[in-house]
Amino acid sequence: MRLDTDPYLERYASRVRGMSASAIRALFAVASRPEIVSFAGGNPAVEALDFAAVEDVVRQVVRDAGATALQYGVGQGRAELREHLAAVMGQEGITAHADDLIVTHGGQQGLELIASCFVDPGDIVIAEGPTYVGGIGALTSCQADVRHVAMDDHGMQVDQLEDLLQQLQREGRRAKYIYTIPNHQNPGGVSLSVERRHRLAELAEQHDVMVLEDNPYGLLDFAGKVYPSILELIPDRTIYVGTVSKTFAPGVRTGWIAAPAPVRDKLVLLREAADLCPSSLTQMVVETWFASQPWREQVEAFRDVYRVKAEAMLTALDTEMPDGVTWTRPSGAFYVWMTVPSGIDTDDLAAKALGRRVAFVPGRGFYADGSGGHQLRLCYSQPSPERIREGVTRLGELLHDELELVRAVYGAAGVPQLRSRRTDEAAPGGSASGQERG
Amino acid sequence: MRLDTDPYLERYASRVRGMSASAIRALFAVASRPEIVSFAGGNPAVEALDFAAVEDVVRQVVRDAGATALQYGVGQGRAELREHLAAVMGQEGITAHADDLIVTHGGQQGLELIASCFVDPGDIVIAEGPTYVGGIGALTSCQADVRHVAMDDHGMQVDQLEDLLQQLQREGRRAKYIYTIPNHQNPGGVSLSVERRHRLAELAEQHDVMVLEDNPYGLLDFAGKVYPSILELIPDRTIYVGTVSKTFAPGVRTGWIAAPAPVRDKLVLLREAADLCPSSLTQMVVETWFASQPWREQVEAFRDVYRVKAEAMLTALDTEMPDGVTWTRPSGAFYVWMTVPSGIDTDDLAAKALGRRVAFVPGRGFYADGSGGHQLRLCYSQPSPERIREGVTRLGELLHDELELVRAVYGAAGVPQLRSRRTDEAAPGGSASGQERG
Repeated sequence: MRLDTDPYLERYASRVRGMSASAIRALFAVASRPEIVSFAGGNPAVEALDFAAVEDVVRQVVRDAGATALQYGVGQGRAELREHLAAVMGQEGITAHADDLIVTHGGQQGLELIASCFVDPGDIVIAEGPTYVGGIGALTSCQADVRHVAMDDHGMQVDQLEDLLQQLQREGRRAKYIYTIPNHQNPGGVSLSVERRHRLAELAEQHDVMVLEDNPYGLLDFAGKVYPSILELIPDRTIYVGTVSKTFAPGVRTGWIAAPAPVRDKLVLLREAADLCPSSLTQMVVETWFASQPWREQVEAFRDVYRVKAEAMLTALDTEMPDGVTWTRPSGAFYVWMTVPSGIDTDDLAAKALGRRVAFVPGRGFYADGSGGHQLRLCYSQPSPERIREGVTRLGELLHDELELVRAVYGAAGVPQLRSRRTDEAAPGGSASGQERG
Repeated sequence: MRLDTDPYLERYASRVRGMSASAIRALFAVASRPEIVSFAGGNPAVEALDFAAVEDVVRQVVRDAGATALQYGVGQGRAELREHLAAVMGQEGITAHADDLIVTHGGQQGLELIASCFVDPGDIVIAEGPTYVGGIGALTSCQADVRHVAMDDHGMQVDQLEDLLQQLQREGRRAKYIYTIPNHQNPGGVSLSVERRHRLAELAEQHDVMVLEDNPYGLLDFAGKVYPSILELIPDRTIYVGTVSKTFAPGVRTGWIAAPAPVRDKLVLLREAADLCPSSLTQMVVETWFASQPWREQVEAFRDVYRVKAEAMLTALDTEMPDGVTWTRPSGAFYVWMTVPSGIDTDDLAAKALGRRVAFVPGRGFYADGSGGHQLRLCYSQPSPERIREGVTRLGELLHDELELVRAVYGAAGVPQLRSRRTDEAAPGGSASGQERG
């Protein structure tokens, strides 16, 4: 076998021929070194969990029901767990019935099953730009034609959505669905305003399009604010994806889909073909966690952890960033989305940042269309506030130096698109690339 | 929403339009009632596990490494676990390197990822007939054109394989791969002879075709016999799927793929799009099990359990079955494949059998082409030997009655294809339908 080319290339299905590991993998490997402050990975702060309680839960599951926990389950997932997941949705004001839920292997499997259910090669799916890397991955593995709608501080710009839907109508085409992360979006760090939710729902009805509502972060608003769910507005038209990765732990790989009954049935068949059934062990650990532990208090504890980290990051950004750099101001979850002057390419910047012992994800991977070269995502969920300040200081120094270099090359007036330092309309538009977490 | 038709029908991708829940689901639901002796599901006898030891293992994982066990992992799976899985392969004489393995969500995810990696709609995949229902599911969800090769007591009939490969060559086509379960095949209950393994490897080389070797049962030979692996014979051409479902427990949903490096890289990308990464918790439970427990002795204990059950079933079949019914005689694992006279349809028989408080899986689901209507699968892995005898007696009474009815309708001479009661060439040919286990 030769090492320089892939001898299996001609054998692959068309869906994988264009797939290749992004350069960002190397970045993630380096970013995990202890000397580096990593704003790259989107890992939750699981250290805020009560591990002794988790130990009690796993013991209890194996001791009381080992023969069930170690056996196969059913494709839809355990009814007991689905009841708890419906209650979690209730916490956000969503009425859901356990029968309509499917337990998935994290939110990512939900995104993939839904793409498999609806998307033939070339089908159009509308998504926020930027959007979740894993959401793009699920869509591109089904060879979707992803069309982005830009965002601002109030989420997806629904006027642009309307334009796109009308354009498609003129072309005689219809999008399979609109993929949105309405709450504390990854990577945008913004939420869709209430008015826009209603408008999005109206447009979906008017243009007869489905909506995929991906909601990993809805319970992580720093003020405990809850937004109306698209699923509540247009239930027959919405497929909803949830996860316990941010409210309990990602290591149990437990998410879920809520879907209208006929779609649910198709998704169960796809899931059985994909991996038969979820792990009984992890399902029972999650259901025992929700049944026996103060999970709402745990979610509040997570919120508090992330609020403190977000404040540390935003305060440091205000102090350390040079003029011309803009960013969003999250009110929940994990992410700040930053735009740098167009003289700077964030792929290059990411490599240089590693030399300064700070890591982030450059913007291109968050778009399906190659844009995002002047944007980047900062995730503050993992480092301590002290380390966050350190990391932002390092990044600020790098950006100061880079801008000086750009000015030396182009002259002060020539730096393209130099804007004021902060903006309330900092558009989460732009692009990045890399392995991403759901 | 109307209940009589699916209002989402026109929206689905072509891969799911033809998918529908098989009637066998209802059968499985009924088969789980305690008064019924179920030979239907392929669940391992997990009750043979030492649950106290499992409890120790899960406690240890959370106590010693909770922050890792509850966090995201990497798409390929933990290196520590892959080392153990390579050692499990070594137990069957296979040399494998942990780098070449991918941890999957059970063997089923392996089958699905491999199908996704290679199969475009209409591509040909060759499989034993009958074969694993979940293997067919993975292939049909990629819209493969599945071509069966019949089996006899020595596994896939390689002469027929050669004929098929030559026919495809004449048509200017090439199969994407040959899917085989060489050891104690599900549902055939037979193993591919050593001579035929070599011939299959030669044919694969000669016709430039890949092989998918699915090996859930290799360590469950009643005499501890180990067959040569196709992977050892033609390593550059073989993708191998393993699972801990039969050597430890299915509830942890842990399997693996061994693949040449370029294919492994593509499979990792597909897996990340599918569900990001395996559960860190279940991976660490499995690796701690292999590291700290006498897992080889546990496998021997499983073998002994299944050998006793197989003997109970075969002895009862010899006594209870009427003339004209034939079946295979497994030397390992879980399954007996039965052929009934052609006057009897096994879909109908399955429904009548429930009335007699015994369940099995009718043959059609084990074929992609609709054959198998006079065949059925009996799985003896779950019931006790006493219950197995009871169940076989009930099935024997039903078949006696059914044959009497057939004779009354057609006359004694008219029962088609009436054959001698036992045969050493009982061909596992025919077909069944239903949800199946990997």
